[in-house]
This record gives sequence, C-alpha cells and structure tokens, in this order.
Amino acid sequence: MITDQDISVHNEQKFKVHSSEIQHLETKLQDKGFDVKNIISDLARFQVAIPSWALGTGGTRFGRFPGGGEPTSLEEKIADVGLLHKLNASSGAISLHIPWDIPENTNQLIALAKEHNLAFDAVNSNTFQDQPNAEVSYKFGSLCHIDPGIRKAAVDHNKEVIRIGKELDSKALTIWLADGSTFPGQHNLRGALQRTHESLASIYDDLPEDWKLLLEYKPYEPNFYSMVIPDWGTSFLLVSKLGEKARTLVDLGHHLPNTNIEQIVAVLMSESKLGGFHFNDSKYGDDDLTVGSLKPYQMFLIFNELVDGMRNTQNPEISWMIDASHNLKDPLEDLLQSVEAILIAYAQALIVDRKSLALAQEKNDVARAQEILQDAYRTDVRPLVAAARMQSGAALDPISLYRSAEVRSRLVKERGLHAVATGL
Amino acid sequence: MITDQDISVHNEQKFKVHSSEIQHLETKLQDKGFDVKNIISDLARFQVAIPSWALGTGGTRFGRFPGGGEPTSLEEKIADVGLLHKLNASSGAISLHIPWDIPENTNQLIALAKEHNLAFDAVNSNTFQDQPNAEVSYKFGSLCHIDPGIRKAAVDHNKEVIRIGKELDSKALTIWLADGSTFPGQHNLRGALQRTHESLASIYDDLPEDWKLLLEYKPYEPNFYSMVIPDWGTSFLLVSKLGEKARTLVDLGHHLPNTNIEQIVAVLMSESKLGGFHFNDSKYGDDDLTVGSLKPYQMFLIFNELVDGMRNTQNPEISWMIDASHNLKDPLEDLLQSVEAILIAYAQALIVDRKSLALAQEKNDVARAQEILQDAYRTDVRPLVAAARMQSGAALDPISLYRSAEVRSRLVKERGLHAVATGL
Amino acid sequence: MITDQDISVHNEQKFKVHSSEIQHLETKLQDKGFDVKNIISDLARFQVAIPSWALGTGGTRFGRFPGGGEPTSLEEKIADVGLLHKLNASSGAISLHIPWDIPENTNQLIALAKEHNLAFDAVNSNTFQDQPNAEVSYKFGSLCHIDPGIRKAAVDHNKEVIRIGKELDSKALTIWLADGSTFPGQHNLRGALQRTHESLASIYDDLPEDWKLLLEYKPYEPNFYSMVIPDWGTSFLLVSKLGEKARTLVDLGHHLPNTNIEQIVAVLMSESKLGGFHFNDSKYGDDDLTVGSLKPYQMFLIFNELVDGMRNTQNPEISWMIDASHNLKDPLEDLLQSVEAILIAYAQALIVDRKSLALAQEKNDVARAQEILQDAYRTDVRPLVAAARMQSGAALDPISLYRSAEVRSRLVKERGLHAVATGL
Amino acid sequence: MITDQDISVHNEQKFKVHSSEIQHLETKLQDKGFDVKNIISDLARFQVAIPSWALGTGGTRFGRFPGGGEPTSLEEKIADVGLLHKLNASSGAISLHIPWDIPENTNQLIALAKEHNLAFDAVNSNTFQDQPNAEVSYKFGSLCHIDPGIRKAAVDHNKEVIRIGKELDSKALTIWLADGSTFPGQHNLRGALQRTHESLASIYDDLPEDWKLLLEYKPYEPNFYSMVIPDWGTSFLLVSKLGEKARTLVDLGHHLPNTNIEQIVAVLMSESKLGGFHFNDSKYGDDDLTVGSLKPYQMFLIFNELVDGMRNTQNPEISWMIDASHNLKDPLEDLLQSVEAILIAYAQALIVDRKSLALAQEKNDVARAQEILQDAYRTDVRPLVAAARMQSGAALDPISLYRSAEVRSRLVKERGLHAVATGL
Repeated sequence: MITDQDISVHNEQKFKVHSSEIQHLETKLQDKGFDVKNIISDLARFQVAIPSWALGTGGTRFGRFPGGGEPTSLEEKIADVGLLHKLNASSGAISLHIPWDIPENTNQLIALAKEHNLAFDAVNSNTFQDQPNAEVSYKFGSLCHIDPGIRKAAVDHNKEVIRIGKELDSKALTIWLADGSTFPGQHNLRGALQRTHESLASIYDDLPEDWKLLLEYKPYEPNFYSMVIPDWGTSFLLVSKLGEKARTLVDLGHHLPNTNIEQIVAVLMSESKLGGFHFNDSKYGDDDLTVGSLKPYQMFLIFNELVDGMRNTQNPEISWMIDASHNLKDPLEDLLQSVEAILIAYAQALIVDRKSLALAQEKNDVARAQEILQDAYRTDVRPLVAAARMQSGAALDPISLYRSAEVRSRLVKERGLHAVATGL
Repeated sequence: MITDQDISVHNEQKFKVHSSEIQHLETKLQDKGFDVKNIISDLARFQVAIPSWALGTGGTRFGRFPGGGEPTSLEEKIADVGLLHKLNASSGAISLHIPWDIPENTNQLIALAKEHNLAFDAVNSNTFQDQPNAEVSYKFGSLCHIDPGIRKAAVDHNKEVIRIGKELDSKALTIWLADGSTFPGQHNLRGALQRTHESLASIYDDLPEDWKLLLEYKPYEPNFYSMVIPDWGTSFLLVSKLGEKARTLVDLGHHLPNTNIEQIVAVLMSESKLGGFHFNDSKYGDDDLTVGSLKPYQMFLIFNELVDGMRNTQNPEISWMIDASHNLKDPLEDLLQSVEAILIAYAQALIVDRKSLALAQEKNDVARAQEILQDAYRTDVRPLVAAARMQSGAALDPISLYRSAEVRSRLVKERGLHAVATGL
Repeated sequence: MITDQDISVHNEQKFKVHSSEIQHLETKLQDKGFDVKNIISDLARFQVAIPSWALGTGGTRFGRFPGGGEPTSLEEKIADVGLLHKLNASSGAISLHIPWDIPENTNQLIALAKEHNLAFDAVNSNTFQDQPNAEVSYKFGSLCHIDPGIRKAAVDHNKEVIRIGKELDSKALTIWLADGSTFPGQHNLRGALQRTHESLASIYDDLPEDWKLLLEYKPYEPNFYSMVIPDWGTSFLLVSKLGEKARTLVDLGHHLPNTNIEQIVAVLMSESKLGGFHFNDSKYGDDDLTVGSLKPYQMFLIFNELVDGMRNTQNPEISWMIDASHNLKDPLEDLLQSVEAILIAYAQALIVDRKSLALAQEKNDVARAQEILQDAYRTDVRPLVAAARMQSGAALDPISLYRSAEVRSRLVKERGLHAVATGL
Repeated sequence: MITDQDISVHNEQKFKVHSSEIQHLETKLQDKGFDVKNIISDLARFQVAIPSWALGTGGTRFGRFPGGGEPTSLEEKIADVGLLHKLNASSGAISLHIPWDIPENTNQLIALAKEHNLAFDAVNSNTFQDQPNAEVSYKFGSLCHIDPGIRKAAVDHNKEVIRIGKELDSKALTIWLADGSTFPGQHNLRGALQRTHESLASIYDDLPEDWKLLLEYKPYEPNFYSMVIPDWGTSFLLVSKLGEKARTLVDLGHHLPNTNIEQIVAVLMSESKLGGFHFNDSKYGDDDLTVGSLKPYQMFLIFNELVDGMRNTQNPEISWMIDASHNLKDPLEDLLQSVEAILIAYAQALIVDRKSLALAQEKNDVARAQEILQDAYRTDVRPLVAAARMQSGAALDPISLYRSAEVRSRLVKERGLHAVATGL
C-alpha cells in the first residue's frame, strides 16, 4: 500500500517545515542540557504492539457500525499492522487473540510477519465468550468456575494459547478474566478467588522459562457486582503467589473513577511487578478510546513514572500494547493517532528536568515541582517524534500520508465494503 | 402455563404462614395509625409495564449467553407478560419497542393482550441501531445528525412509532437518544442540541392530544465523550420548550456516580415534569440489573419522594416501567424479582409516618427524621405486598409458584433451547 | 445519667410490644432452622469501640456548629461512652486519639473505665496536624517526609502512643496517614512509599508481642493528588512486609466511587490480614455519616462476608470501631444510631441460610442466591438486637430512653453550652 | 514590591529568548492564517478576578498550615492583588467576600484599588458559617431554612452585600449556598427548593438594574446527602424563574465524577445563562487546586466552547474569577500559576482552526476533528501569553520575577510569620 518511495516523496515535501521545527526545539533543549540525539534514539526504539482485534471497527452493546475494508484473515491483519509500522516505525509487533486469530500455517505467518518487520508480542486467551459449538460455556466464569470441568477447559485453552505462541516466538501470555459475579450472593467471593488462583497456577506451570504471564485487572464489566480480579492489589496478590514470571498488566481503562493510575505504575515498578501496559483513553469507564484523546496530562504523568522507574528500579522490561476499540473512526487512523499520542507522552517525560525536580522535592517546593513538570508537558515535542520516525525511515506525518494515499478506499475496494474483522 | 387453579392451590399452601404474618403486621401498623386496607389497595392498583425486550437474555459487548425458550414473536412476548401478570397482578402492561416489535395483525394483538388483561403502555422508538437494509445509518446520530436527510428519517421513524402506538391504544412515546459524540470536536455541542430540539419539535407536532412524549437522558454509553441529552437538566430544558405533553423520563441507571436521584424526582415533580420511570439497579453505570438488587434503600428514598410528590404536587400520572437486561438469570424470574422489589419500596414509602416526619423537619431534629424513615424501611412489608397480590387473585409467592410449575423448562420444550428474543 | 432503675422502668414499658415481636420472629426463624438463642448471644457479645473524637460535633472546612455539653476532658469522654454502653451494652470500649487524649492520671482513668465496664481499644496516633508549639511541622508529610528529622519525630510520636496504650492495657495501634501529595511532582511516589515503609518498620519494632498494628488506607483528602497509602493493595503490601502483627484496617468511607468494599473484606480475610474496621457511611467520599444511614444493604453485604470469613478463615479477631463525625446531630444519639445499624447488619448476616446459599452457588442459580440474601435482609431483625440488649441489662430502645431522660440538656447544664470537644 | 523598573530589567534579560520563541511561533501561526496580533490583543484584554480569600493559605478539615506574610486587612489584600496585576497584567480585579472583607473606609479603598489599576468584581455573600455573636445560626441552612426568621436574616445579609458592592462599583452578586441536608429525611426536598426560590426572589428584587446575580451550584460538601442547588439544571431552573439579570455560575470543582463540564458551558451559553466562572482544578471533588494542574486538556476544551460561544451566541459578558484554596503553596505563586494556565487554555482555544473543524464536523470526520483540536492544544502557546503580558507592561515570566525579587520573604518580614488571612 505504501512504498519506500511514497515515504521519501512525503518526507521531502514535509522536510523544510520539520527541519525548522526540530532545529528550533533542539536549540532550546540543548540550552537546558538535554542530549537531543539520545532522546530521538529512545523514541525510535520504542515499539508498541498492535492487537489484532483493533484493526476492525468495535461496537457497544447498542450496536456496531463497521466501516469497510476490514481484515478478515490473520494475513490481512498482519498486512494492516505492517502498513502502520511502515508509516510510523513504532508498531513493530502484533498481539494475537485466540481463538479469533488461530494461525493455520505458522511458518508462512512468521515469514509474512518478518517481511513486515513485525514480531509476535503477547498472545491473549479468551474465556469470556462462548465460541460456536463450544463444549463448555463461560456464562458463569472460566478460571473461577465452580465446576472443575469448566475450569479445566479454560486452563487447557490457556495452555493451547501458550503452545500457539511458542510456535510464533511470542514470549508472553496475557490473561484478562471477565470472571466475576453480577449479583450479590452469586458466588462466594473467597471461593472464586481461590479457584482462580489454582487455575492460574496450573497455567503458570506450563509457562516456558523465558515467558511472562501478564495478569490484568478490571473493576467491572462484563460483570456488574464483583470481578474476581478487580484491582491492582488482587492482581499483585496473585502474581506474587504465582512466581517470578508472573506480573501485573495495567490497562488504562480498567479503574474506578478518579484512580491515580500513575501511582499504581510507580508502586508496581518498585516491586518489580509491572509486566505490561494496555494503552487507551476514557472518560467514564472502559471506553477504549484513542490514546491521549481525553486525558493527555495523565498519559504524561504515567510516562513520567515509567521513565523514572525504568531508570531507577529493577523492574524487568515492560510489554507495551494498545488496547482500544474504534467505534467511529477508521481503525488504522485511530491507531496512528494512538501511537503518536504515546510517543508524545514519552517524549515529554524524557525532557523532564529530573535533577531540578529532585531538588524541588528535597525542598518541598511544590510550585516549582509543578512548574518543572509543566514546562516539559507544555513543550511542543512533536518535532522529536517526527525526527525519530524519519530516522527510522518512516513518514514525518503518517496520518497525512495515509490519507493522501487513500489507503482506506483502496482497502475497501480490495476487501469489500462489508469485510468485518473479528473482535468486540 | 399457570391457571387460576394453580394459583388457588399455591395460595392455600402458603396461606397459613401468610395469614400469621399479615395479622402481626396489621396490628403493628394499626397501632401506628395506618389504614392497612388502604395501603393494600394502593399496592394492588400499582402497575408496572414490562418492556418487550426484557423477556430475553441481554448481553454485554463481551458476549451474550441466551438461556432458552425465549419469545421470538410479539405474540409470545405478550404471553410471557401475561404469565407474569397472572402471577403477580402488577405487570398489567407491555411496552413495545419498534422496530423489534412491529405488530402485524393489530386487532388480533389487541385481543390477545385483552385476554391476558394487558394494556399497551408507552411505545419506544429506536434510532440507535442500524436495521438490516436500512437506507440511512445512525452511526453518527439520529435526531441530532448533521445531515438533514438522516434527521428526517429519524423523525419519520418516531412518527411511525406513534402511528403504531395509536392503533394499539398506547398513550405515550418514549424517546431515548443514543446521540452524542465519542471524541472532543466530533460535533458542535450547541449545534447538536439545537438540531435535536428541532427534530423533537417536529415529532411533538404529530403527538395526539391525549399522548405524552417521555424524554430520557443518559450521561454516557454508547457515546463516550458527550451525549446530546446527558442529564435531567437538558431533558427538562427540551421538554419545557416542547410543551405541556412533553415530560422527562428518569431511568435509574442513567446517572453519574453518586447522583442523588430522589432529589431529581422531587424537583421534576415540583415542576410537573416527571413523566415516566425506568426501574433497574446498578453499581457502576447503566448496569441494567434487577431492581433493588444493589441499592434497595435508594429505591425506598425514591418512592418516598414519589409518594410525597403524588400527594402534594400537580405532577400528572407517571408511567412506570422496568428497563433491565437480564444477562445471567431467567428473564421471567428476574422480572418477578424486580416487580417485587418495586412494590416493597412502595409499601415502605406508604408506611412512613409523614406527620411526625414533617414535625421533625420543622424542628431540625435530624436524628429523629432519620429514625422515622428507617422505621418504615426496616419493617418487613412483604406481607402487605403478598396480601395485595392475593386480593387481586394472584400468587402469594409468584417466583416459588413459577419455579414449582417448571415454567422455564416447559417454555424451552415449546419454543426450543435456541429461541432468542430481540433486544440488546 | 442513666441508672439501672431507669433501664428497668423503660424495659417494663416496652416489654409487651417487644415480647410479641420477638416471639413472632423467633417462631419464624426456628421454622427455618435457626437457633435464635445463639444468634442473640452472638449479638450480645459484639462490642464496638467508640472513638473519643466522635463525642463532639465535627465540622467541615466550611464551618463547625457545635451543639453543647460536649466532653472537654478525657474523664468526661469516658463518662459519655459509659453512658452509651449503659444504654446499649454494645459500646464497651473507647479508642483514644493522641495527642487529643493524653491521660494524666492513668490509674485513675483505668479505674474510671472499669466503673463503666469499658476497655481501652486501639490507640490512634495523629501526625496530620501540627500541635501548638510543635517542634516539627507535618505540612509536607510525616512518616513519608523527605526530612529524616521529621520522620523521626513522627516515628517517636507513634512509639509514645504505644507507650501510653500499654499503660491503659490497649492492644493495638491504629495508624492513619494523611501523608501524600496535592500536586503532581510534589514528591517522588516511590520514594515516599519507601520512606513510609522504613518509618513503619521502626514503629513495628517497638510493638509489644501481643499488640496489633492496624494500617489504614485512604484514596484522597487531605491530600488531593496522591496519598501514600491510597488503597487496600498498598496497605496490604506494607503490612505483609512488616510482619505477622501488622494488618489492614478498613474504613468504609476511604474508597473511590463504586468500590466493592465487601470484596476487599473477603480478600483480606482470606489472607488473614483484616485487622480492624472503622464503621461509618457516606454518599460521596469520606463523609463520615451515621452507620447505615445511606447504604444499609452494603453494610449487610459486608457483614455477610465478615460472618462467612470469621467462620471459614484463619483471620484473627478483628477490632471494631465507629469512625464518624457528627456535624448536625447530637453525637450521642448518632452513636446510638450507628451501633444499632451495625447490630442490625450483623443480625441480618447471622440469619442468612448459608447452606441453601452454597447450594444455589453450586448450581449457578443466581436468582435463588439473591433471594436467599434478600430474605435475610428484608427480615425485620430489630427484635433480635433488642433482645440481645435486654439480655445484657441494657435498654430495649436506647435512643428513646436517652431522649426521655433528657440527657443532652442535663449535659449542657452540667458542662455548658459552649463546651467543645477536641476533634475535627 | 515590584516596580516598573524591576519589570524592565527582568524583561530585558528574558527578551532575547522570548523574541526567538514568539517569532518562530508567529511564523507558524501566520502560515496557518491566524492574525497573531489579534490573538495577543485578545489575551491582553482578558482579566481574571482574584478572590480576596485566595491570598491566604487554605486548609482542610484535617488541619491548616499557614505560610506567613498573609494579608490581614482589606488594604493588604488589595496590595497583594495589585502586585499580581503588576506582574501579569491579567488580574485587574478583586472579588470581596462579606463578612470577611467589610470595607471600613470605602473612598480610601476605591482610591487604593485605582492606584493598583484594580476594579471590584462580583461581591460574595456568606451564609455558610456562623460569625461570632451572630444572632442566627446557619447550621441548618440559610435561604432554605425552615424558620422564616433565619431566611430573612440570610436575605438581609445578601442585601447588605449588594449595598456594599454598590459603594465599590461592583456589578454582580455571587451566591453560593451551602444549604442542603446531610441525612435523608432531614428536610423536605421540594420544600427546601421552594423556600430557596422565594428567598432568592426577594434578593433579586433589590438588585440594581445594571447588576447580575450569579448563582452557583454544587453537588455535595458541606452537606453530604443533598444540596439544595446540586447541579446546573437546578441553578438554571432558578435563574430562569428569577429573571433576566440572574445567571448560572460554573465552578469547575462543583461536579460529580466524570461530568462533561464543557457541555454544560455550551448549553448555558446557548440559553444566554452563563453568568460567571470560578476557575480551579481537581482530581476528586472540590479540591480547589491550581488551575490547570490536573486536567489541562479539560481547561482547553472548556475554553474551546467559551470562544465558540462568545462568538456565536447572545450570551452576555461573563465574569471570570479564580476560586482556589492554596494549602501547600505560597498563595501568590499559586495565583500566578493559575492565571498563566487560564491564559494558556484561552490561547490554545484561539488558535483552533474553526473553519476546518466545522468542515470535519460536516463530514463526520471524527479523526480529523480530533486532530484539529489537538494541533492547537499541542502547540506551545506560552510565547503568545508572554507577549500579551509584555505588551501590557507586565513581566515576561512573572513567577520567576516574583521569586528573584524575594517577595514572600519581604512580606513575612513586613507582616509577620504568623499573619493569617481570613478564609477557609
């Protein structure tokens, strides 16, 4: 869809303006003592996995309004992520969701991914839906189910997901559990947790040595009274019991109103238990909106903790992934916007004057500490992000190139107006 | 499914215990100066409409787990509501949802409803989903849509719903709008409101003289940045402009966290603008759970305002309806539980010692005022509700009779395990 | 203020009605297989500590409106709690707050408490306010403070509180930390947690063998960006590191909107880490209202977990305490209402048919499980609570006796209209 | 404290860097078609009133930690605001709070204000606290009180505030009511609203022709069950009944979690009923934090509506005011930060490409609409704000000049370390 040639032409057109912007910013940052080359390299290295289900239009329980030209095979999904990565050089991995994405010819898939410079990031299991002709039903839970047979089926499914992931050279299993109860009394709260722990332990036993098990938490939806793993504390409790390879995954949308998420990030890192991140944004609940579209300052504060934690804790490398559901936008445009927002937040965090900040904290100079953070945040860092992209051979302005190349209408032509991807 | 004979037998079995309970309570209440006969009559008169869509298992965006034996035709839906009404004598109306329930033979339907002693309550329009082969799409709104053609289609749909309602002798149109925006900037907030007002005015013009237009509000979902009618204030603003026949409908689940709903009820009644009520319960958002399953004291406080308002304001008669979505329970059991919870709250509100309450308020005796409310609430009023049912020829314990009569398994046998009703 | 004789007269007047009530209820419960005597004994044994600061009128930052006749000495506070305990036989302990309640003559105090049949429950430290002429300021934190000198002062204060508690035969130290930050950047989130841990470890070292350290959590207020211990997860993390004697204390008002508190209770008990409970109620935040005045069903669900946990986990005995702030009511009336609400919730939890509940859970019969809980909740258990009180020699209707004895006006006469207790 | 000479020297030092910044930005904006001179003029004209109570350190119910050198007389408060205005040329008005700021010598005050180029903005009444020796108590409400005598006192107080305001050439009365109830049943919800309406009508009768009555709303605190005016809908209902001169005042902190405030702004402007604004920021409730310190994107979205509304509605001129409470910072630094944040949001809103936005909305191009808003928001507009200040003879970097001039330590020396201002 987009060739190296397209990118060259695009970058040439945009270069003059970009050049003036980056020079201006570079001067400013150098005056403040930053090594701009390093910052750009950090940005260029940062890779965010794209989940296979984000390539189609999502929906709500009230309806779904698919766009068109959505990928209907795993191959097409890889092609879509490849296209994104071509444009922004920051989406170099795909995260599969089983059973929505069961590979048929693994070797061929691996070759295809390689062609697009893509890795296979964490594989995701799904025990929140009943597949057609499934032998068991997850209506009343999976890993927590009162019936040992259903628990076993759910455990086996996770082991199967690991098996598939191993073939693709994935290195992590992400488990999000919809398990919970919708009415008080529906299940014994302690019992459900205990059974979940046992099921997870059985899955953990199957985890290869060089893998991670990433355990999500979520306070509500689809269950509306209790979720078995509602908060970081419960996830942390479980991963601590499971062992070294198990860690907590933070999804930005999975919190009660007003939660201080960056503090959760900081605490988990101080315990070396932050395993992964699902980026999205929201105003009300798990709204699954474009990253940075509602609370960009929160994103910055989170990256401020991440940068600090990556430098000053023993927390192992974190898996970065987008987890959004694009109800109204072209999913590819939305993903481009999300990756851009992530890199902007990261860039802002990289230009925080940490020495001065530590000094202000030392003196309880609250106003000054705020000023230091805001100075970084208010800086227009987009030229840094663009420079990182250009350095990696990608487009200075990915979404503008995507649009001028009329990718979506070509995809619709190719795949059809009614091609609908698997997903929510 | 359930005959008069079944009910007689059931009531005879339960009568002895019930008799002791009601006598005990009657004595207690009479000592406090209440006319128990009146209370029971008030309870017996109270009728809550059942929405056609609540008869099937609902779902979330993460999956749907239908039970079995769900009604697949309007006739079967009427039969289901008829069964409920037979059991509790408090569900004497059905509320249709167009286009899920377009009547084919109106006269036959009316006759069928009459057989079951059912009226047709408010008819509901649906402009939040695209129907197969629809000529327009509501992806970006309906009554607020920027495109006049789509607005006209949505207005026309509402007029068609009125036409159908007139044939069934319904007297109200309920409008719930999913219209809104999911991202800042998506639409002009004032423009969307203005267009919605114009569309509503055009619908209002078609409203028969003896009808009401009931306008719902909801803060979020399915749109996640703004809803055109997010709160009672906006609904009130619009119904005030529309005219006398337009009033606000309160759905319990459509509020931000911690909203004082009973105060909204009180204020709307003081302005004679409370038109209808959608009962359900929730812990987090529009969870659509069984009435009274999470916040029974809130239900009581709401009925406390309703009883006060019905006695002391000019607010016209209110339309009562359940609006829940039963994901995990047998929908009919759930509806029986919901109606029971409504009547319990109403009964508690009827035994509030209002004279003493007014006196305590007069003296700012806050502890005493609380005691008076709690005394009513802590009283076990279930015998009153049962007595009202028995007086109307229904079952003392509807859910127990429903279960012992094995209704669901008979429905499954009759309609099939995979019979799935229309709805969310 | 209230003599045994007063109670006898009162109980005689109320006995006839009570007798009819309890007999009616006893029959009902016995038919369901409950041993009513046991239930009444359980209720009679249940003791809730009264905090010394709840005996005066509280306030908000917008103002304080003291009532009159408040206790101005520790002796008067003990007298007030003694009066409550005389009336309800369920408030047999007082919880002191240092430095608001520094005992001057310990032996005399112990004798006075004994006279009133009171024990000294957990002692509370205060590092959230600056005392007049204090050498250090807690403006920017205490146990988390960046300045080691201030941390040491805060640690020493806690050790001093332990010392005082030992003299009074208290067995627990409750630590609530206001520490946190009000603006992003104000302090390093990980650093503040780390320093807090070290300070706590130093306090823990001083804890006598038979003591508990109870660690509260709170998401916000008085700090409005981050609290060092914002949630149960952070408290749990810290108490796990501290050791066996450290456990988490749950204050009902210290949660974000919509938190499922009963689940936190269940999880903490499954880990044997639920140490104590602060009862109150709230609609918005840490409103510190009368127990059961807003969310009585939540109280029941919490006690449902507590009863289940006390029977089926290894969790050691829990410290029960009220922690409310009575802005508008006579504090003593409010405390009587609070204790009553606690006992009602406990009684309801004691009559849950747990065998049937387990069976319904086994079968995923969600509607039935709800019915079982609601059957217990809807039962009017007040006669059980009254019977427990009478059995212990206290009043059938404490608040009514309190009022008819005109206690408050006698206290005002005795102590003055402008006697103001220490506290918030 | 700060002379013209100080400002000149400061601006000379900062000019070179500023000059490069503004030139770079000017070029960029001109390329996009903006008239930068106009934008700078708009910014220079924008004036935000400073409330007299924000000049001292605020507190919470848990404690207050005053800084030092706070103004203890009205004259000193005017001097402090004068200093701010000298520094930023955007704080040209002071808003008084009666009875905290009763002027003694009006003429002298007016002269003093004139000296500082300050106007007297809206005057604020206070019926939420009892003043020493007050004849009535507002413990149970003021304008809503059940006792006509107390209502009259509260009405009279407001009339007295108008009288004082007239002398100072103020043109608006701001009413914030703490009135409400803390427990269900405490007062009759409809009755309280009705009485409040009558009291307001009586105050309105006294309002001079060229005045506005600004009516705030707030969902909770200091009352914790209901507030008489909890939301914009109730305020709107009341101001509509009162008349043309009455309008709603929006305080950013007075909303339930997740409220879309910018939509309220848009709706009020469409009805010409947005009268005033209280700026602050918050994460949890009415936290009263520095403007822009937590949710700067929300601030931008609000200004986006304000700019749109000021251009396209009939809404009369709006009163702008800060309403924050600076618990931990030097209040003057905090106010400088707040004004800066307001101007930044305003500047960002002024560079939204509204033509393209309208076009994207016309085409339901959601991703593009978001891009347009974010392009404005991500631009570093600080040079525009600095340019506006310099143009008005104020400092390029007010807070840096404030610090280098060591204003606070001079104030402490002058007024004392224990000088404490009136306020919360």
